Amino acid sequence: MTTTRQDCRALDAKDPLRALRDLFDIPADTIYLDGNSLGAMPRSAPARVAEVVTREWGRDLIRSWNSAGWFEMPRKVGDQIARLIGAAPGTTIATDSTSVNLFKALSAAQRISAETRPGRWRIVSERSNFPTDLYIAEALCKDKGWELVLVEPHEIAEALKDEKLAILMLTHVNYRTGAMHDMAAITQAAHAAGALVVWDLAHSAGAVPVDLSGADADFAVGCGYKYLNGGPGAPAFVWVNPRHAERCWQPLAGWWGHDKPFAFTPDYQPAPGIVRYQCGTQPMISLAALECGVATVLAAEPLGGMAALRRKSLALTDLFIALVEERCAGHGLSLVTPREHARRGSQVCLSITVSPPAPPLRGSLPPEGAPTGLGRPGAGGEGAYAIVQALIARGVIGDYRAGDGAGHPDILRFGFTPLYLGFEDVWNAVEHLREVLQSGEWQRPEFNRQHAVT
Amino acid sequence: MTTTRQDCRALDAKDPLRALRDLFDIPADTIYLDGNSLGAMPRSAPARVAEVVTREWGRDLIRSWNSAGWFEMPRKVGDQIARLIGAAPGTTIATDSTSVNLFKALSAAQRISAETRPGRWRIVSERSNFPTDLYIAEALCKDKGWELVLVEPHEIAEALKDEKLAILMLTHVNYRTGAMHDMAAITQAAHAAGALVVWDLAHSAGAVPVDLSGADADFAVGCGYKYLNGGPGAPAFVWVNPRHAERCWQPLAGWWGHDKPFAFTPDYQPAPGIVRYQCGTQPMISLAALECGVATVLAAEPLGGMAALRRKSLALTDLFIALVEERCAGHGLSLVTPREHARRGSQVCLSITVSPPAPPLRGSLPPEGAPTGLGRPGAGGEGAYAIVQALIARGVIGDYRAGDGAGHPDILRFGFTPLYLGFEDVWNAVEHLREVLQSGEWQRPEFNRQHAVT
Repeated sequence: MTTTRQDCRALDAKDPLRALRDLFDIPADTIYLDGNSLGAMPRSAPARVAEVVTREWGRDLIRSWNSAGWFEMPRKVGDQIARLIGAAPGTTIATDSTSVNLFKALSAAQRISAETRPGRWRIVSERSNFPTDLYIAEALCKDKGWELVLVEPHEIAEALKDEKLAILMLTHVNYRTGAMHDMAAITQAAHAAGALVVWDLAHSAGAVPVDLSGADADFAVGCGYKYLNGGPGAPAFVWVNPRHAERCWQPLAGWWGHDKPFAFTPDYQPAPGIVRYQCGTQPMISLAALECGVATVLAAEPLGGMAALRRKSLALTDLFIALVEERCAGHGLSLVTPREHARRGSQVCLSITVSPPAPPLRGSLPPEGAPTGLGRPGAGGEGAYAIVQALIARGVIGDYRAGDGAGHPDILRFGFTPLYLGFEDVWNAVEHLREVLQSGEWQRPEFNRQHAVT
Repeated sequence: MTTTRQDCRALDAKDPLRALRDLFDIPADTIYLDGNSLGAMPRSAPARVAEVVTREWGRDLIRSWNSAGWFEMPRKVGDQIARLIGAAPGTTIATDSTSVNLFKALSAAQRISAETRPGRWRIVSERSNFPTDLYIAEALCKDKGWELVLVEPHEIAEALKDEKLAILMLTHVNYRTGAMHDMAAITQAAHAAGALVVWDLAHSAGAVPVDLSGADADFAVGCGYKYLNGGPGAPAFVWVNPRHAERCWQPLAGWWGHDKPFAFTPDYQPAPGIVRYQCGTQPMISLAALECGVATVLAAEPLGGMAALRRKSLALTDLFIALVEERCAGHGLSLVTPREHARRGSQVCLSITVSPPAPPLRGSLPPEGAPTGLGRPGAGGEGAYAIVQALIARGVIGDYRAGDGAGHPDILRFGFTPLYLGFEDVWNAVEHLREVLQSGEWQRPEFNRQHAVT
């Protein structure tokens, strides 16, 4: 029996999380399936940001460091995020970027490993991990004479047998495929093998239940502007298992990590606990927007919290997969994301395995030196890119990620944020996809990669 | 002949920069002498920030990375800052915090020095440098087996004779005293001695003319939220002399520093030039406010630019010094900031050498563990702290910095931002100071340090 639009409306009608959508201000003509890249704007954000700018900065000026609690904001927002990732209060800081936080966490893990398990000097990660994680690890390894080893997901168990392995660094939910690791099982296996584990929660925090304490993870970092809806480039976060937090300095030993930052002593004395994972002054306006974003996820707590969001997220992605397979059959789409719930994040990725005929080349080539990110060759890439563009033109916003020519195909990527997406939205998105494919409108020149200059 | 209020009004009337004050929205009851800590709010900031939040984030969502130029913002704002510090386009990036940028710059300087002058492993800095600079250097030295040597300003020339000296790291204008170094002369002397020089422009950028290119400096970092008026915790900046920019990776090798960030390749390839000094995604809302702030300083360009701002700044600080000495004589105030123009930044610091009688102890002690930054003992500290509090209660906002008990006294610190301060403001500020001292109102219990909990 096939699913109908009426079925989707019925699902919306009985959705216990339905009211949370009103926490967001999303353009009426948009179905936003890119919250995994940049979360939508909370309705509270404009007024709160205006208050920070006009009152806290403009009127109260320097006094707001105390009166508006600016100095404590990274800890305060960190504690709010902690509730979403199975972390205790006082173990998480909202600060800096994910890349900078990963540098702190990996550096600390290196120091702890070198001290407790000397002779281990390898970091293992996934080849298809988000590149910035690999770059940060690569630079650290280069600096320390360590080695970064990249493996496929199915090779992780084998990699743990390496007695030179010091650190396993993984992203919980893969940014391309949406595949999710079993955090508890992998952490346990890595510990049994004598390694520390650093988790990147960029596509997990606010998207899937995470239990860092329960998994006894070592370090974690994550992103503020994806499922936490914190706004463009919102500060990221870092969590450290309390048993590690005071074992070493992290190398970005700035004054916000000092035990007595306003004593202005010339020597560094790290603050107790997670506070030493701060470095310099934080961008308060962006941090205020992040607090609004985190509040939208915390608003689900009385309705069942992350478990309820997860149930709806799986229902949405199940529905999307079923509808694509029912209604877009015959167009060469394949599911890249795992079908198994336990292995799926909150996004669905499709590849297009039948490469449609290339559209006629029109217009000028992009200028020499223009960003080439959207123009990597790959099987079906022309189609995947153009289909995403055609959907965006219809107000269905997903994104395209180029393949790597080494087993990872070009993909159409669709994120499903249960806070603001409904079941009829999924129906409508798939209808647009079906129409784009059936009409061939994706072959229009304006959707061709040759037209993309950025 | 003493200066009168009428004289000050006459100076305002003929001030060619007078109109720039209208670029700011400062409370009418406030004389703001703390722009060296947090610059005042540009009148353009609320609308621009609202546009980023409501339109770019809320309506255009993920598309704004391209359509609103988010991805290029750090380079764009960096190029704007470059015009204020004697730097060429394409050599400055607005990004991260000052501390994080200093880590990048110092790390790169270490690498370059180790390669070109092996056997040098000392970093020299000033004992009264802003502490975060010392902490970052201390942590790097600890990591690399280097040594950080702290000296007094008059010992720098001697320190350059040390043949183990690799890097001289100085803040151009001292955060406590307002004393300014001769950047060109010191850089030249350090180069002659075989050392690289890293300058911190936190109290210089937008405050005094800086000519990094002319001085042939090696690296520089600076702050966005002081004289650049970028808002609380605004992103900072980093400049690298083009002859060094491509000589090494900096260790925070995040994806924004990659040559092709959207190619998502697993290996790091640093971008050409200063772009490799980026790391992760930047906070766009705060960055937009920074652009508004930088624009207020650039608005002086048609009126003579930094040279004109400097003339007015010196006239303001000269006036403040003269009026304090004329009108507050006999209250034990001493000038800490150098009187000589070439050695003075855009602030004036006073110490109070005659310790007034301690006020009666009233009220409860601060809670155990409360921040103690405002409560360090020092000669005259009770007086300095309480006088600043009494001035703030009158709307004259300066700040207090505790002494270190090692030759640096407690100080009353007053910053003078020529963009929004006039000569009559200076008159009024000194009148308030005179009244606070003559009336003894600073001795009221509410101004006592014991009442400060943060």
